[in-house]
Amino acid sequence: MLKKKPDRKQDRSRNSKTKKTKKTILIMATPVKVYGPPLSTAVSRVLACLLEKDVQFQLLSINLSKGEQKKPDFRKIQPFGQVPAFQDDVISLFESRAICRYICEKHPEKGNKGLYGTNPLAKASIDQWLEAEGQTFNPPSSVLVFQLAFAPRMKLKQDETLIKKNEEKLAKVLDVYDKWLGERRFLAGDEFSLADLSHLPNTHYLVNATDRGELFTSRKNVGRWWDEISSRDSWKEVVNMQKSG
Amino acid sequence: MLKKKPDRKQDRSRNSKTKKTKKTILIMATPVKVYGPPLSTAVSRVLACLLEKDVQFQLLSINLSKGEQKKPDFRKIQPFGQVPAFQDDVISLFESRAICRYICEKHPEKGNKGLYGTNPLAKASIDQWLEAEGQTFNPPSSVLVFQLAFAPRMKLKQDETLIKKNEEKLAKVLDVYDKWLGERRFLAGDEFSLADLSHLPNTHYLVNATDRGELFTSRKNVGRWWDEISSRDSWKEVVNMQKSG
Repeated sequence: MLKKKPDRKQDRSRNSKTKKTKKTILIMATPVKVYGPPLSTAVSRVLACLLEKDVQFQLLSINLSKGEQKKPDFRKIQPFGQVPAFQDDVISLFESRAICRYICEKHPEKGNKGLYGTNPLAKASIDQWLEAEGQTFNPPSSVLVFQLAFAPRMKLKQDETLIKKNEEKLAKVLDVYDKWLGERRFLAGDEFSLADLSHLPNTHYLVNATDRGELFTSRKNVGRWWDEISSRDSWKEVVNMQKSG
Repeated sequence: MLKKKPDRKQDRSRNSKTKKTKKTILIMATPVKVYGPPLSTAVSRVLACLLEKDVQFQLLSINLSKGEQKKPDFRKIQPFGQVPAFQDDVISLFESRAICRYICEKHPEKGNKGLYGTNPLAKASIDQWLEAEGQTFNPPSSVLVFQLAFAPRMKLKQDETLIKKNEEKLAKVLDVYDKWLGERRFLAGDEFSLADLSHLPNTHYLVNATDRGELFTSRKNVGRWWDEISSRDSWKEVVNMQKSG
């Protein structure tokens, strides 16, 4: 639908493999497309999921500072004019957490097979914490990411009242996480899941690009959990993509 | 886990049916439990889903004004001290949208079979709009519900700046909805789904308990959609439960 060229540097489609024979090309899956910059927290959530699931993808650049996400062509696949957008051979989707669910449902046998659970009860527990992330963790943490990490880069004035209010809110949320994670290794049990993954983008900025990392590292169980989830190869690769793009 | 008695008035477990014979009782499913008042938007989302799916439930009262949701016993099933919480014979869950997904996944053959889609693509489209509701529609609309409908009842001062800001934000969101709903009957296509259902609680308050209903009714397609989704029997029953409880 969009005619943008893929960013070659960010192309994870392993095109070299597709050059063998015509027959090989025909049976290989087309890489899925992700629109948006890896620096976006929502885009990086989708990238981490694709890397965990070992699903080939092409990253197509959308220049947010030029407002490319608001253009009519892009709004055909993302009506709100936000990133990311996602396309494969059968569907266009928006909303990072919905895209992640779809990737896991479509590729149960690829990569990390348990990322979205392998039975209905595990899946429900993962959904529960994926929703807690979206509804309870994300609101205060995304305000802090914007105010503390992005506003200075964009030369915007920081809102100290808003920062204070959301820091207090996030601290209370993390107290609950700390207690919960004192009783289990990951949010939904013994295995790393989409629920943990979904916390990586905001937490990464708060720990590594602001002076508020102690919100996480000072809490024993949250700190242990953060060390473990952020050292996964998939997330390290996303961070490298953020550095280069 | 909790020892609260079910609220008899709100009991939808159709206990009369369970009095037949011991054999019958053994093969009948135990009603699921929902903790929280139907006046809560998140609780009413779960109730609408249970009624659409024709799943028997017991509603157990949690008195929010007495802070019962913050008590240690309740926090065992809802660590953040919020409503609703949900229990069936195999799992305890929190987060209304996760509970709704679980109910649909567990009972594919009951009630409205297509509520969460009948194939992976339909499900992905529903998930996309369920996330849009949670991430884009809910933030401004829930602020307005609290400020305009609940604050006066609780004799709290309204924050006019916050109201204005969120009204503008919601208007922009609804412009996107209006365009989208000009091309399809419901958010995820031709059928009513969990995505539409999830918008009922906040919209109901804004249309019926504030003077901002025009945000919805003045927009041709949003107005048509609202008339249709709010006239479903399941939602009418939830509204009756709100009136009596």
